[in-house]
Formats: sequence, structure tokens, C-alpha cells
Amino acid sequence: MSDKTVPSKPRYARDVSQWDRETDIAVVGFGGAGGCAAIEAADSGAQVIIFELASASGGSTALSSAEIYMGGSGGTRVQKACGFEDDTEDMFTYMMMAAGPQADEAKIRNYCENSVEHFNWLSDTLGVPFKDSFHKERAIMCLTDDGLLYTGSEKAYPYVQHAKPCPRGHNLYIEGDNGGPLFMKIVTENVEKRENIAVEYETRALTLIVDDNGHVVGLVVRQNQQELNVRARKGVILCAGGFVMNEDMLKKYAPKLSRGTQAIGNPGDTGSGIQMGMAVGAAAVNMHEGFISLPYYPPATMTGGIVINDKGQRFINEDVYHGRLGDIALRQESDRLFFILTVEQYGDYEKMNFLGASIAGTGESVAELEAELGLRTGTLQQTIKLYNEDAAQGEDTQYHKAAEWLEVLEPPLVALDITPGRGAFVPYFTLGGLDTLPTGEVITSDGHTIPGLYAAGRTACGVVRRAEGYSSGMSVGDATFSGRLAGRQAAGH
Amino acid sequence: MSDKTVPSKPRYARDVSQWDRETDIAVVGFGGAGGCAAIEAADSGAQVIIFELASASGGSTALSSAEIYMGGSGGTRVQKACGFEDDTEDMFTYMMMAAGPQADEAKIRNYCENSVEHFNWLSDTLGVPFKDSFHKERAIMCLTDDGLLYTGSEKAYPYVQHAKPCPRGHNLYIEGDNGGPLFMKIVTENVEKRENIAVEYETRALTLIVDDNGHVVGLVVRQNQQELNVRARKGVILCAGGFVMNEDMLKKYAPKLSRGTQAIGNPGDTGSGIQMGMAVGAAAVNMHEGFISLPYYPPATMTGGIVINDKGQRFINEDVYHGRLGDIALRQESDRLFFILTVEQYGDYEKMNFLGASIAGTGESVAELEAELGLRTGTLQQTIKLYNEDAAQGEDTQYHKAAEWLEVLEPPLVALDITPGRGAFVPYFTLGGLDTLPTGEVITSDGHTIPGLYAAGRTACGVVRRAEGYSSGMSVGDATFSGRLAGRQAAGH
Repeated sequence: MSDKTVPSKPRYARDVSQWDRETDIAVVGFGGAGGCAAIEAADSGAQVIIFELASASGGSTALSSAEIYMGGSGGTRVQKACGFEDDTEDMFTYMMMAAGPQADEAKIRNYCENSVEHFNWLSDTLGVPFKDSFHKERAIMCLTDDGLLYTGSEKAYPYVQHAKPCPRGHNLYIEGDNGGPLFMKIVTENVEKRENIAVEYETRALTLIVDDNGHVVGLVVRQNQQELNVRARKGVILCAGGFVMNEDMLKKYAPKLSRGTQAIGNPGDTGSGIQMGMAVGAAAVNMHEGFISLPYYPPATMTGGIVINDKGQRFINEDVYHGRLGDIALRQESDRLFFILTVEQYGDYEKMNFLGASIAGTGESVAELEAELGLRTGTLQQTIKLYNEDAAQGEDTQYHKAAEWLEVLEPPLVALDITPGRGAFVPYFTLGGLDTLPTGEVITSDGHTIPGLYAAGRTACGVVRRAEGYSSGMSVGDATFSGRLAGRQAAGH
Repeated sequence: MSDKTVPSKPRYARDVSQWDRETDIAVVGFGGAGGCAAIEAADSGAQVIIFELASASGGSTALSSAEIYMGGSGGTRVQKACGFEDDTEDMFTYMMMAAGPQADEAKIRNYCENSVEHFNWLSDTLGVPFKDSFHKERAIMCLTDDGLLYTGSEKAYPYVQHAKPCPRGHNLYIEGDNGGPLFMKIVTENVEKRENIAVEYETRALTLIVDDNGHVVGLVVRQNQQELNVRARKGVILCAGGFVMNEDMLKKYAPKLSRGTQAIGNPGDTGSGIQMGMAVGAAAVNMHEGFISLPYYPPATMTGGIVINDKGQRFINEDVYHGRLGDIALRQESDRLFFILTVEQYGDYEKMNFLGASIAGTGESVAELEAELGLRTGTLQQTIKLYNEDAAQGEDTQYHKAAEWLEVLEPPLVALDITPGRGAFVPYFTLGGLDTLPTGEVITSDGHTIPGLYAAGRTACGVVRRAEGYSSGMSVGDATFSGRLAGRQAAGH
């Protein structure tokens, strides 16, 4: 073994001459997953140390809007107060469709059945505030203090055909896009008030320590330029985030994300937790998948436009979640992608153009716009003719955009260039990680557990598997829920 | 550790009470990669044992057509004799485009620069016969004894815009689809005549043996219901195939292949070699990718037809390799996929319908066929109007099918239903495996080698990365080439 301690090579316990720290459970990373793991483990009676690379808690959860995807069992307090009844089976069906063929059914089942309990824990045990109010506008993030909104494709084709829609995005009781910092402030206060949790900041986890049976018994950390050996009697919980900041890993594992323009995450999302797990034989799964998006709304009125490829063809219902539209758009074999709007729909988009898309053309007629975009004569005309016939009838017979968004596209028209690489903002983050049981126990590629090793949040691969089925709130929902499960399981180890 | 020896848990050398076999190099698997690895290692002076699960050599190479993708450096003997000059840079550009963003540039560079040498080795050292003749017909496999044919998308858009096309599929000098068995017969004879190679059949590799430094020093095999500890002084070369026969791994790693109907490979392609590597910290990469295809030709005349989705739209140039068409077809958000042909093009397709596609409709006019397929009125009419205008002009302005395949589609027309799951034959196999250096040394996710461990063929992840860029002959080309490199490197260890 090289002298350099790297996450891809474990240390053997027999080579440890002294233990610098001893605890029941070592948690790597103090974001939403690590914080909730520590709290749940501590509340189960275990002694916990959290090791955090940064000088403060937060992780990527603090950078997010901290919407939390919850529902089922008739509804959370907020859902019920807003007049929604949410059946667990509808939530399950939606999340299974969202995850696709690689869905982890056991995890999704567990998530949906215990989601209301999770809401209650966040609300009652941690004290996270949610207002009993519904935000009606279509939004990427809720800028009001409303407690509930639609954050996915629940009302859109094809999901709506299989699962009764219900809003499940729970937004913290705070104005503006400030949910993430507030959420992590509350989690951090909960950690600090528990005497059996210690936190060591500015401490980098280097690699795991295994015994002669391959069991994980601790980890090596670096603090003040010193390597410390940490003994974790009950195990190590890796909550160190994903790998969106690791260029080499992105290229090898998630090539599709190379089309994104903006990595979403904190600087510590270098995949080191995933690499530490792989080094002791853990399987990393779903590594090719990531969230990638063309965030074309707000304003919601954009949904009345159509998206076309360089053949002048539509290819999706434009009322889906922006991640689904982005993912499917990026799959098109097309040199250009355009968003076509009426001047009225375009309105003052320039002022709030989150997407950063520039105008590719305008036209007093469809034919004029078609020519200006360099499309073959007749192609966009045919597309808009069909769309307008459908809009007039109130049914999108081809792509099934919901009737509420169907408006005849009357020139003058505007076309935005939404081609990735031509100015549009294309955010991305990873959705692959260590394979785990629903309990958070890390497993090998043939399903054996690795005793003493747990993972949660983005270091694990949870209920969220695909950009095309993503909904806002699924990440923080999964991180906090999976963190709790891992904490509880490790405490009982 | 469990008592059961599984590929996902290594054995520790200190737990080995006796070595039942000792050799320089242990090769796991006797297909094309394992055979070539053993020969090259033996010719470099090493003592080798090949352990093969089956009762005979062959692996998936023997089941293939054994076309071998080679060229560059001005051309192989066959290419030159057939009048083709093949520039290394054109081959490199083509293979880089084929592999996409996850391309391993160092491996592709090495492959292209040494491909003619590889041809010479196969031909001169092993005695593999290739006839100096060019097969002009577009084919999935060469049923004549011709030595050279186009086996990919070299002449098709977008490749042709960036790299000068050259045929690189080398076919063995034998009539019918019999290249695979002949190739493995020759490799096996070469193995048998080398005194420093032993072969043990009906022997299952169970897991690797590692020393206290994490170096691979041997492996555990099972033979006659006995576990044997094999010491490999110079290392172990894993050539145990891919994981197409492992349902659990397919679901976890390569969900897209769930749309295929026929796994292509031998029963031993269970991913055990990949799992053995992962158990000692190796990275498995590109695991989500696989070959998947709609093999719609022969006859080549099918190329004159067009493929459409359930919106009546084309989405690809139909002169690409069938794997590229299949992969892109499967990406369409479409309930149905159709192949539209004239009655003349259809000809006696029924007799040689390799694809197994049934007739979805016929029409004396485009409008009639459109209605019969349940397409919206005007959509297929528009598509065929545009296509026919282009065909008449000799230029496919939208999808860039080469002029030689452009024919005006004059009714009566036939539509084949090529939707996966509705009768069409959709073959698939995996393209992910252990990450290696070009030398065959297995590496971790942060690029460290694992001393004593090598992989080749489908157990490794080589130059072939995507269905959409696949060409026939790339797999056996990669297997034999990477096997040789690993054999040579291990022998020098």
C-alpha cells in the first residue's frame, strides 16, 4: 500500500498503533443526512462523533431550497390542512415511475409508508416549521412562506394517467429561497443540544479502517495536518455527499452530465465517501444517472409555449417538471433546441430569465420564424398547425400537455435558444452512490452486507434515481429519511 | 465473513493453510481474452494456468461471428489488398466518437496505433486466416468467406463528416457464420501447444486471495466440489466475461437493457469476475451501458425505408449500424416504432426477417397507411412528403442518410412494427466492467493500481463504450487485444 492515505485503500486495524478517538458511531459529513443520522443514533442511545470537512455544518442541504417530498398515509398535517388527501399507493406509484427500471422498490415502499411519520419527526422532534398553506403557482422553488406546492410532474402525462396527483413538496415557513439555511440551522441546534453527539469540524475523512474479517471498525481522519485513527464500535455512517465536484469520476461514471453548465453541490461533493465504500468492496450503483435540467420556468406562463428540436418537431409535453424536460431534451439527436412562445407569453421573461436563454428569432408569421431559425420550410408550420388545432379543441392529442396550459400560438412569435452550450443554464448533480439496504447497511454487488458500514444521503443511492422522474424535494427528503434509518440501524448494531 | 465463498468477499492469504496450485499467472476464463492473455504471457516466459468454468474453451467469443475490428497505420494486409488505405487518425476519430464522452482516450489511442500489429500477430503468430477480399454488401455478419467488410456506421452521418470511412471488420476465412468457433479452435490449439500453459476446465473461480497489503496473490477455485487455493506469483488476469446473464446486476447497473429480448453471451457471463475485482476495491465503470439493437437488415435494401415514432416522425438516418438505430430508437418517448417500406423494398423480407417484426399495416396510399397505424392525420403524410422531396433531390436534408440509400417511397407501402416488446428481436449484452489502465492493470476509482490484478475482455471496460457507437468486431477486437496486453504486463510483473 502506498504511504499516502487515500479513500480507495482501507487501513487495516492491525496497523493501527493507537486509537485517537473512540465512539459508538462515526458520522462522516454534517449535511442533512449526517445531521439526521447523528440525531437519530443519539436518540437511540449511542455516542456519536460527526466529522465535517468544512468549518461549519450545512453540506449541500444548506445550499438547497430544502423542499422535502412527503405524503401518503392520507396526508401530512399540511396536506390535510390544505384539503389534500394523499394515498400511499399513489405516492408509491409516482415514485416508482419516477425511478424507472432501476427503482429500489423496497426503499420506495418504506419511504412512502413512513413519510408522514417523517414529517411528524421533522416537525415535532426537530421543530422544523411548516405553514398550513398551499402555493398555487407553478414554481421551481417557493419564494413565499407557503408550506406546500407541486414540485414534480404529478399532474403531467404520463404520471397523471397512473397515480392521482397530490402536491408533496413541503416548504419551510420562511420567505424567499431560504429554506436550506434555516433547515440546517435547526438540525445543527438539535445536534448541539444532544450531549452524546460531538462535532469535529475542519476534519477530512481519509479512509475506513477494517479488521481481519473485513468489518468496518473505524476510520482515519486528518485534522490540523495530523492523521487520527477513530474507533467506531458500532460503525461508520458515510454521509459525505455525491461526486458532482469530481471531474474524473463524472467523466467515468456519469458522462451525460458533461452537457451541464453548473454543478450543484458543495465543494466537498468529491465522491470520497463513495470511494471509501468501494475500497472495502461496496457496490456503487446508478452511477451514470444525475439530475440535469433546463429550468425554463418561472414564470409558469412559459408552460404555454412549445419546445422543438432542429427538425421543427415537438418531443415532450411542456408541463412536466423542468428536470424531466431537460433530460429528455438532452437525449434528442439535435443540434439546436428552441422554446417557441407568443409575444404575450414571453411577456417580461427577460427580467426573470433564470434559464439565461437568448432570443434565437422572432416572426410576424410562423413561416418567418421558421426561416429565421433555419428550419426546413413547412416543418414548424406543420408542428404549430397541429398544436393549434389541438389547443383549440382543448386536448393535446400528441404529447398530452394538460388542457390548462393549451393556448393557440398566435404570431408574432418568439424563439428562445435553449441548446445546452449556447448560453442556457443547465444545472446538474449526481444520483448514484453506494448500494444500501433500506436500513442504510451498505452492501456488495451480490447483496452481502459489510458489517459496520452504513451510508445515507447522496453517498448512498436512495429512492431518487433519474432526472427524468425527479421532483424537487426528493433529495432532501431522501437524505433526511435515509440518514435517520442509518442512524437507528447503526445504534442497534 | 460468511463461510460461503462468494466473489464479493476476498480471502486473506494468512487464512490459506495450503496452496493447492502454484503458478506465475492465473487466468480466469478461456474465451478470446483469456486465451490471448495466456498465450502472450506464456510467450513472455511466464507459467500460466487457465481456469475455465465450462468443459471446453470458447466463452462468448466462440458464440460470436468473431469479426475483428482492425485498421489504421495505412491498413492491414487485407485492407491494403482490397485497395483501402486506413489512416490511424481516422480510426481514432471514429472510435472516439463511437465511445462518446466516456471514451478512454489512452486505450483507444493505443488500440488504433497497434491494430495492424495485432492483425499481424493474429495472422502470423496464431495462424488466423483472413482472405484478401472485400464483401460489398451491407451485412450484420459476413456469410461468405470474404476477409473485410464495413461493420459499423463509418459511412453514415455524423461519423462520415469527421473521419474518412474505411472498412475495418475483419472476417475469418470460412463460409457461413462460423468465425467464432474457428477462431477459438485456433486459439485453443495455440494454448495447447504451449508447454507453459495448463488448462483446468469445469473449474469455477470463487474469489481472489489478497495479502496483508491488499495485493492480489492468488484466487480460490472450486473443482470436483473441492475448494482449491491457487497461488499466482505474478498475478491474476480476470477474463470471465460480462454480466448479461445476471438479472440482479442488470437491474441495478444497466436498466436500459431491460428492454431487450435476448441476452447475448454464454451462461458464464454472470459478472463474477467484475464482482471479484470490486471486492478488492476495483472500480467498475460504464456499467450502465450495453449493446442493444434492432437488427433490421439484412437485406441491405431495408436501408431504403424509414423509421418513425408514434408521432409519424423520423428520428435517425436509417443507414447507420443497427445497434445505433436500436439504441436511439429505444430512447424515443414513443409507444410504437414502425419501419416504413415500399412493397418493392419489402420484397421477400418475410423469408429472412431476422428482426421478427410483424406487419403493422399496409396502404395503397400514405393516408391509408397513416390511418391504419393510428397516426394523426397528416403526420406521416408530411414526413413522407419531406422525405420524398429530399430523395428526389438526392439529399436527405433532415437526417443525412447517404444518397445511395435514398429512394422515393411510392405507395403501396408496408409498415413493420419494430416496437420492443411486440415481437421484434432485441439482442443485448453489457459494456461495463472493471476499470483498467491500457496495460490491463486494474485500478480503483481514484486511479490507483491494485498490484497483482489484471482484467481483459468484457470483465474490463475497454475501448467499446456505447451501443450508439458500436460496430461489429469491436468486442472480439477489444477482447483479444486487451487480453494480450494484460498477459504481457502480468508476465513482466
